[in-house]
Amino acid sequence: MTEKFDAVDVIRTKRDGGQVPEDALRWMVDAYTRGYVSDAQMASFAMAVLLRGMARDEIRVMTDAMIRSGERMSFAGLGKTTVDKHSTGGVGDKITLPLAPLVASFGVAVPQLSGRGLGHTGGTLDKLESIPGWRAALSNDEMTAQLRDVGAVICAAGSGLAPADKKLYALRDVTGTVEAIPLIASSIMSKKIAEGTASLVLDVKFGSGAFMKDLDRARELARTMVELGTDSGVATTALLTDMNTPLGLAIGNANEVRESVEVLAGGGPADIVALTTALAREMLALAGQPDADVEAALADGRAMDAWRRMIRAQDGDPDAALPVPRETHTVTAPAAGVVTRMDALPFGVAAWRLGAGRARAQDPVIHAAGIDLLVKPGDRVAAGQPVFTLSADDPARFERALDALDDAWEIDPAGNPVPEAERAGALVRERITA
Amino acid sequence: MTEKFDAVDVIRTKRDGGQVPEDALRWMVDAYTRGYVSDAQMASFAMAVLLRGMARDEIRVMTDAMIRSGERMSFAGLGKTTVDKHSTGGVGDKITLPLAPLVASFGVAVPQLSGRGLGHTGGTLDKLESIPGWRAALSNDEMTAQLRDVGAVICAAGSGLAPADKKLYALRDVTGTVEAIPLIASSIMSKKIAEGTASLVLDVKFGSGAFMKDLDRARELARTMVELGTDSGVATTALLTDMNTPLGLAIGNANEVRESVEVLAGGGPADIVALTTALAREMLALAGQPDADVEAALADGRAMDAWRRMIRAQDGDPDAALPVPRETHTVTAPAAGVVTRMDALPFGVAAWRLGAGRARAQDPVIHAAGIDLLVKPGDRVAAGQPVFTLSADDPARFERALDALDDAWEIDPAGNPVPEAERAGALVRERITA
Repeated sequence: MTEKFDAVDVIRTKRDGGQVPEDALRWMVDAYTRGYVSDAQMASFAMAVLLRGMARDEIRVMTDAMIRSGERMSFAGLGKTTVDKHSTGGVGDKITLPLAPLVASFGVAVPQLSGRGLGHTGGTLDKLESIPGWRAALSNDEMTAQLRDVGAVICAAGSGLAPADKKLYALRDVTGTVEAIPLIASSIMSKKIAEGTASLVLDVKFGSGAFMKDLDRARELARTMVELGTDSGVATTALLTDMNTPLGLAIGNANEVRESVEVLAGGGPADIVALTTALAREMLALAGQPDADVEAALADGRAMDAWRRMIRAQDGDPDAALPVPRETHTVTAPAAGVVTRMDALPFGVAAWRLGAGRARAQDPVIHAAGIDLLVKPGDRVAAGQPVFTLSADDPARFERALDALDDAWEIDPAGNPVPEAERAGALVRERITA
Repeated sequence: MTEKFDAVDVIRTKRDGGQVPEDALRWMVDAYTRGYVSDAQMASFAMAVLLRGMARDEIRVMTDAMIRSGERMSFAGLGKTTVDKHSTGGVGDKITLPLAPLVASFGVAVPQLSGRGLGHTGGTLDKLESIPGWRAALSNDEMTAQLRDVGAVICAAGSGLAPADKKLYALRDVTGTVEAIPLIASSIMSKKIAEGTASLVLDVKFGSGAFMKDLDRARELARTMVELGTDSGVATTALLTDMNTPLGLAIGNANEVRESVEVLAGGGPADIVALTTALAREMLALAGQPDADVEAALADGRAMDAWRRMIRAQDGDPDAALPVPRETHTVTAPAAGVVTRMDALPFGVAAWRLGAGRARAQDPVIHAAGIDLLVKPGDRVAAGQPVFTLSADDPARFERALDALDDAWEIDPAGNPVPEAERAGALVRERITA
């Protein structure tokens, strides 16, 4: 197979705006994974893809080739429908925590293979590791058993899934080619499809705290992934959701678990409830339960039961006290008015600087570090009223966190308050289906 | 310097169509040469340059950074004006051989640092090495002395000139980024400017036997190089010349030397004479002799004298017999008519397959191998009249050479002959000046 194609021909075809034939594209991915195609050749190809794009069929082939570079899981023998969710990442995005048990409480299997955070967006596993005893690493057998017995699993993705994607992503990161939509789509979807789910709901975020800053690019990514899932035999729906403001009130790890438990107890911030239930309805519709009453499952404790069983199955204690911070610093309103803006990106960066996130993959996170918002945009505040609280283990971290927040929020003395329900209702902007 | 910039920022700027700031671009070239910027990063950047282009000032800075990566020659102490010529390469292109001594016969210094051939275009050094005793490698002192005493030098470029270009060219060759006009221009011009010439005439070829197949791209390259030379303080002019038909009658090495000597003796094919004299007039104009009578210098033996002194100065014997082929194969006209086409590329490929060129840099060339055309497009032929003769050391090479020539030439029974002078007059298509 190695001798039949030439990397320079493949690069030239894409560079000149052509479509790379299926066998040549499969060869390119395979030869790159094996080291016959160099990093320099793949980087040049990635830049050509970024600037020239890829046809729908090329994206499907590229993704399939990445899936075939590694193992592929299957939950076919489970006797349950499986449905998965993926978020493109945001600030305060703890939705997976209440969502997985909520959907599982309807008898659907929810295998959530998740990652750790890097940079300003937190990682689902980091958040759950705030819970004493909880472990992220499960064997395939443990995962299957938990899906059968509990329904919901949130665990670490094995390194055997789509190794080509791992190699390509590391290359894109240092060659200015991360932003290529066909490559983003194939990176996300190759792992999700390799995980063997039957259906998938995507939470594609746009705005300051999201990877995609503007709605148009987010829509393009969502449409590309929905088409790719559909073409690959996975029923896929996407919601485009606003990530200009942090989700909920908690940004961190332990505090995000606390907020998730509030939602599972039938309370919690309206935006978190709105997004959790919107995604749950999409997932359950794909699983054949379009009329499931997800609000009832939150209100009557069924979702909480599933959460407790999920945490226990992974050796966590759902009743244990979560870590609390050693130091806090509260910022107050300089004047009365209405909060008009709390910009997700600087709040994410500030939480990261407080120790909630990591700069390098091998760094630990501080589970009790982060930010608790005390008001949200649309709320009226009095002069001197607390606006948010920073938490850290070391007070030396406050200064750099506060630097990030300098221009991150605004109070308009003449602003009009916006009711919480109205704000929460505006969160899901569009729905993209096949 | 290494810490101040980030390769990903530089790549992103170019990728998004921006102009890379001067200090960042200088850093990128320097850091790549030193190995701080990886091949993958430079390949991604090169693809972005290919698809997004570069501003005139970026090309100047990039070229200057490549020049500064190595040594820079200077002929300022010579007491003579220096003028250099560069051809983008063609089939049967032996113009440097008569041109350098012709221009030198007017008291101008012509330092021609040349290369060896790779693929279907021959190398000037390969051709001259047909001459018994002649040596391509000169020290800088030998070169300077010869420029002073003889005026003309054709020798090998030292490896110390623009090492960044050498590294970048090897990378572009395997990453589908050779065709980027800003990078072609900076590659050619960085070496020419580092050679220290005061002025430069470019022979930019277009057509089947040229690197640039079409006139528009050749014009863009020529204009880019003329601007770049001008911006870098080197007076630069370019001629756009037709490379759809082999130049002259000889394609090879020893036979091209023979043809060059015919021109220096006042004879030779009209197209070779036309191109040689056109380039000589441009070079002498840049050297302050716009009215030089170059035809007279060919007719009265002054150019031949300079040739003989130039060959002797490099230990060659201008009177020695040149190598002759062991085997020849002559192709005849299948029918009477007018030759309407002899396609430069396949004739170049055929000569290469006969042994006149090399596939790998370390291969030797067969100096007596090649093709002698016996007629040219525009000539009338009778049925059975010889059209061209192949020469090789091994008759086994004829078959693959003839394969290349299958559709390479045409005879039209109803065609109209074109006078040789008219054909030669059409060779120089445009002149590009600053």
